[in-house]
Amino acid sequence: MTVQPKDESAPSRPTAGRANRPQPGQDWSQWPTYDAAALGFRNYWYPVVWEREIGDKPHAVTLLGEKIVLVRKGDVVHALHDRCPHRGVPLSLGRREFPGTVSCPYHGWTFDVTNGKLAAVLTDGPESPICGRVSVKTYPTAQRLGLVWVFVGDDQPHPIEQDIPAELLDNDHVLGGKYDIREGNWRFAAENGFDEGHAKYLHNTALWRLFKVMPAWNKTRVEEHGPWLIRVQDEVHWDAHFPGLGTFTNKRWWKRMPLPDAPGKGKNVNPVIAGLNLPGFVSIRLPGLLRVAYPDFIHYEWYVPVDADRVRYVQIMVRFEDGPKGLLFKAKYLAAIRWLFHGQFTAQDAWMVDVMDAPPEKLYRPDLSITGWRRMIEKAAPTPQPHKAPPNGC
Amino acid sequence: MTVQPKDESAPSRPTAGRANRPQPGQDWSQWPTYDAAALGFRNYWYPVVWEREIGDKPHAVTLLGEKIVLVRKGDVVHALHDRCPHRGVPLSLGRREFPGTVSCPYHGWTFDVTNGKLAAVLTDGPESPICGRVSVKTYPTAQRLGLVWVFVGDDQPHPIEQDIPAELLDNDHVLGGKYDIREGNWRFAAENGFDEGHAKYLHNTALWRLFKVMPAWNKTRVEEHGPWLIRVQDEVHWDAHFPGLGTFTNKRWWKRMPLPDAPGKGKNVNPVIAGLNLPGFVSIRLPGLLRVAYPDFIHYEWYVPVDADRVRYVQIMVRFEDGPKGLLFKAKYLAAIRWLFHGQFTAQDAWMVDVMDAPPEKLYRPDLSITGWRRMIEKAAPTPQPHKAPPNGC
Amino acid sequence: MTVQPKDESAPSRPTAGRANRPQPGQDWSQWPTYDAAALGFRNYWYPVVWEREIGDKPHAVTLLGEKIVLVRKGDVVHALHDRCPHRGVPLSLGRREFPGTVSCPYHGWTFDVTNGKLAAVLTDGPESPICGRVSVKTYPTAQRLGLVWVFVGDDQPHPIEQDIPAELLDNDHVLGGKYDIREGNWRFAAENGFDEGHAKYLHNTALWRLFKVMPAWNKTRVEEHGPWLIRVQDEVHWDAHFPGLGTFTNKRWWKRMPLPDAPGKGKNVNPVIAGLNLPGFVSIRLPGLLRVAYPDFIHYEWYVPVDADRVRYVQIMVRFEDGPKGLLFKAKYLAAIRWLFHGQFTAQDAWMVDVMDAPPEKLYRPDLSITGWRRMIEKAAPTPQPHKAPPNGC
Repeated sequence: MTVQPKDESAPSRPTAGRANRPQPGQDWSQWPTYDAAALGFRNYWYPVVWEREIGDKPHAVTLLGEKIVLVRKGDVVHALHDRCPHRGVPLSLGRREFPGTVSCPYHGWTFDVTNGKLAAVLTDGPESPICGRVSVKTYPTAQRLGLVWVFVGDDQPHPIEQDIPAELLDNDHVLGGKYDIREGNWRFAAENGFDEGHAKYLHNTALWRLFKVMPAWNKTRVEEHGPWLIRVQDEVHWDAHFPGLGTFTNKRWWKRMPLPDAPGKGKNVNPVIAGLNLPGFVSIRLPGLLRVAYPDFIHYEWYVPVDADRVRYVQIMVRFEDGPKGLLFKAKYLAAIRWLFHGQFTAQDAWMVDVMDAPPEKLYRPDLSITGWRRMIEKAAPTPQPHKAPPNGC
Repeated sequence: MTVQPKDESAPSRPTAGRANRPQPGQDWSQWPTYDAAALGFRNYWYPVVWEREIGDKPHAVTLLGEKIVLVRKGDVVHALHDRCPHRGVPLSLGRREFPGTVSCPYHGWTFDVTNGKLAAVLTDGPESPICGRVSVKTYPTAQRLGLVWVFVGDDQPHPIEQDIPAELLDNDHVLGGKYDIREGNWRFAAENGFDEGHAKYLHNTALWRLFKVMPAWNKTRVEEHGPWLIRVQDEVHWDAHFPGLGTFTNKRWWKRMPLPDAPGKGKNVNPVIAGLNLPGFVSIRLPGLLRVAYPDFIHYEWYVPVDADRVRYVQIMVRFEDGPKGLLFKAKYLAAIRWLFHGQFTAQDAWMVDVMDAPPEKLYRPDLSITGWRRMIEKAAPTPQPHKAPPNGC
Repeated sequence: MTVQPKDESAPSRPTAGRANRPQPGQDWSQWPTYDAAALGFRNYWYPVVWEREIGDKPHAVTLLGEKIVLVRKGDVVHALHDRCPHRGVPLSLGRREFPGTVSCPYHGWTFDVTNGKLAAVLTDGPESPICGRVSVKTYPTAQRLGLVWVFVGDDQPHPIEQDIPAELLDNDHVLGGKYDIREGNWRFAAENGFDEGHAKYLHNTALWRLFKVMPAWNKTRVEEHGPWLIRVQDEVHWDAHFPGLGTFTNKRWWKRMPLPDAPGKGKNVNPVIAGLNLPGFVSIRLPGLLRVAYPDFIHYEWYVPVDADRVRYVQIMVRFEDGPKGLLFKAKYLAAIRWLFHGQFTAQDAWMVDVMDAPPEKLYRPDLSITGWRRMIEKAAPTPQPHKAPPNGC
C-alpha cells in the first residue's frame, strides 16, 4: 500500500469555526488510539536490559508505567511486579534468602521468582496461613540478542519471534549496542526516528556525518511491507537555492558523494541485507522499533515507554557476518560507532525529543512519514486501549 | 481486653464484587478515623525540640501541618502561629526588639509572645489604631524531660501529665535522646514501631543486635492496659524450617540466647520497670508514642506529624537511676546507644517508612498488632476529625 | 485627587457572617482587576534586557507568561514567539542560517525576524508549499535608555513614549542599572516598592542607610499626578516611645539628620528634578514602575512579570548631568551604588517579596499607599482582562 504525499497543513475535514479549537492537523484527535497511547502499547515484547547486567541482585525497571523487578534464577531472568503486596515495599530492595526466591526486606515475605507465589514468610513460621494465598504478578520474559525482553500486557503472550525482525533471528551476526533512559514521551522519540525531514538539518553538525554528505531535501512516500512502514525516496536534492536568502546544502569538498537511494543498491551489499529487498533506508513497526539499513550493516532502535515523560532508548548495530569480519566490526563498534552514532548523533535526537512540545503542531510535506506511522497504528489497533492500573498483587 | 489473633487477610464483611474495588482488608475504609488522620490527631501534647535549642532566635517548626514559631521569654518557651497577619511573612524570620516580644522583619509588627497580641507596630507610631485589634494564635506549651511540648488543637488543653507516661514523671531517671525529621507519614512510622513482624528480619543486620539473638517468629496477641496497647508473646520460636527452601534463624554461635519473654521477668530487673507489670516488651498509645521496655531501661519514641509526608521522630532512652549509675548510663548512651540504636537501628525503620506504599495492603498473622492499634483509635475517637485549616491570625 | 488615610482593617461594606469567608480587607475581591492580574497587565511596553546583551545568538525570555525570543538584525532587536509552530521546539535554540532570519534547530524552518513569516524550510526545498502560509507571532520592540523594550499585548501598540517617564526622554542624563529575576509575584514586588511602612524597619540594617537616618513613622497620604500616584508625608516622626516596651528610632549619633520631606526642597536640587514639582519622594504608575526621587538623582524600578511566581526586576539610577559630573556619577554607580543600593538594599526587598503570602492580609494605616495603588488600577482598567493563552503561531 502506498500513502500518497499530501500537504498535511490543509484541512482534512470541515470544522466549525469555534474559538480556541485547534485547527485540523494541529491536534491528535484524528488519531485517537495514538493520542491515548502516552504509556505505549500493551501486549508486546520489549527489550529492557542486557542479560549480563542481571546478577544476583534484583534489578528495578519501569516499563509502560509499571514497576517491575528483574531477578535471575540460573540462566533465566524472571520479572515480577516490584511491590510486595503486604505493605507496598519494592521487592527490588530485597535480599535473596533461598535459591529461586526474592524476599521483601521488611518482613521477609519470600516469593518464588518463577511464578510470583508467596512461598514462605520468614517472620511467620512454616505454617503461616497466608502462604499459597498471595502472589505478585509475573511478566513473561525471554532472552534474545543478549537482551532481556519482557512482555507487558494482559493477554497470553504471543511468540517473541513475532516482535523481533526475522533477519536477526535467522542469520549469524555480530552486534554492538547501548541503551539509556531519555527525557520525553516515547511517541516523540518514535516520530523523530521515522521523521523524513530533520536529519538533513539537525544532524548536519554530527561527526558521524563528517565524511558523508546528506541531501538538502527529498520527495518521499511511505510503503507498508508486512509489519513495516518504509520511507521511499522519489527525488533526492543535494542543494536548495532560496531566492533572496541563500543556498542550503550539506555538500562539502571533503564529503563522499551520494549514497545510493536504497540500501540494496550499493556495491558490496551484504547478501542478508540485499535479501530484504528494502525500497528505502528507514522502516518502522509496532510497538516502536526503527530499522535503518545500510548496504553493509543495520541499525535498530526501540522506543520502550518508561512512563509518559521518559523513554528507554535501546539501540543496536548489527553486521551479518561471523569470523574475523564480525570481530573487526565489533572492534569498530566499540572504538568508534558507539560514541559517534549511538552517542553524539542520537544525542541530538534526544535533545529534540526532550524540548518538543506538540500538539498543537503544523505539519509539512515530509511529515507524511509521521502521519503514515500514525495511520498505520490506527489501522492496526482501531480501539483505544485504556491503560489499566498496575496490579497490586492478588 | 484481649484482641484475639485472626487471619487479617480474611474478609471481615461481605462486599459486592465491583471492579477495581479494593478487596476487604486491602484499604483503610474500615478505619475511617485513622484513614482521615493523615495530619495526625489534634488536641494532644507533642514533644518538639530540646529546651536548650531555643535561645534568643525564633525557631520555626511545623506540627500537624501548622507552621509554628517557638520563642523564649526567660525560662519559658512560647509558641505562636508562624505568620504575621499583616502580609503573611513568617515571624520566625523576625527580630526580638523588646523583651517578651517578636517583631515581624517586614514592618515591625510586634507581638507579645505570651498571648500573641499585637503590642506595637514600630512603623506606625505609639497610637497605631490597629494595636489591640489583631493577634496571632498561640499554642499552649510546656517543658518536661528537657523537651519543649506543644498542645496542637482547638480545645482547652488537658494537663500534660495525661500525655506523658507516669513512670517518667514519678521517678528519678537519666535520659539520652535524639530527634530527626523523617520521610513518610506518621502512621507508617507508628505502625512500623508497633509492628510485631519486621524486627526479626529487617533488623537482623543491625549492629545493635550483633550480640543478641532475635526470634524467627512468634505467636502474639495484644492487650489493652489503660491508655496502652501491649504486644504479648504466646509462643517464641528461634528458627523456622521451610521445606524445599531452607531454614531461617537469627541464632549465631556468638549471640546471647534468649531474652526473657517480658521485661519484668529478667534478672536484675529495675524496680521501676518491674513495678509496671508489663506483660510484653512493646506498647503503644495515642497520639503516637511507642514504649519498648527492657529489664533495665526503656526506650520511648514519639511520631509527631510534620505534614502528610514527614514525621518528627523523637526518641529517648531512659534509665531509672541517679548518682554514678545514672552518669554511667548517660556516658554509655552518648558513646554507643545514640549511634547504634537511635542511629543505625532506627534508620532501617526510616528506610522502610519512606518506601512503604499502602493501602492497598495484604495483612498477615503478626499484623494483629497493627489492626489492634487501628481499632483502639477508632474506639477512642469514633468520629473522624476534619482537619481545620491553620489560622490566619484574627 | 487625594485619597484620605483610613484604617484599612475596618470593614468597608456589610458582609454576611459566613464561615470560612475572609473578613473584609482580608482578600482581594474588592480589587477584581488587580486580583486577576497575576500575570501582569497586557498592552504595555516593558523593559527586558540591555541592548548590548543581544548579539548574534537568539536570546530567550519569558514575559507575562509568554515565551519570547529576542533576535538582532543589524541595529534592531526583534521579538518573536519562542516556539516553532511545526513541533513546538523553541526557536531560541536555533541557528542564524541567513541574514535577518532564525532557523528552528530541528527541521530548519526559517523565519523572517522582522515579521515572523516562514521564509524558507531548509529541508523541504525552494517550492515548499507551506512557505507563506505559516508565521509566528511577533512582538513590537523598541530600544530606549540602553534597554530593549517589548510591547506585550493584543492591541496596536501605543507610542513607547507614553510608558517611559518624560524626564528620561527630554533631558541629558547618565544612568547605571541592573536587572535580575526574582522569586514572587510582580504585585508583591510593586506593593513592596510603594509600601509606606517597611523601609523604616526592614532596611534599617542596610549599608545604604548607614549614614542617613530614616523616620520611625509617618503620617502619609497619596496623590494622583497624571499617570503617577505619589506618596506625600504629612507628618514625619523620628522616634516612637511604646509604653512598657521601649523606644524605636533609627537615629544614631553618626547618622546625618533629617532629609527634606520632598525631593525638590533640599539644597543643591538638580533643576530637572526641581522641575518635576514632586510633593513626595516615591511615585508609582502602571504597568508597574516605581520612581524614587532624591534631590540630585532618581531611582526607577520596573516590576516586569515573568510568570505568576517570578518577576524581572529592572532598576536604573539616573543623574541629569553630562560631562565630567555625569562621568563621576557613573563611576560612583559602578563602584558603590550598584552594590549598596541595587544590590544589598533591594535584596532585602527581594527576600520579603519571596516569603510574602497574601491574601489573607490585615492592612494597617500606612497601607493606604497599597490600597491607593490598587484603587488606581481598578479605575484605570475597570474590567478584568482575562489572560489569553500564548499564541501557537498560525
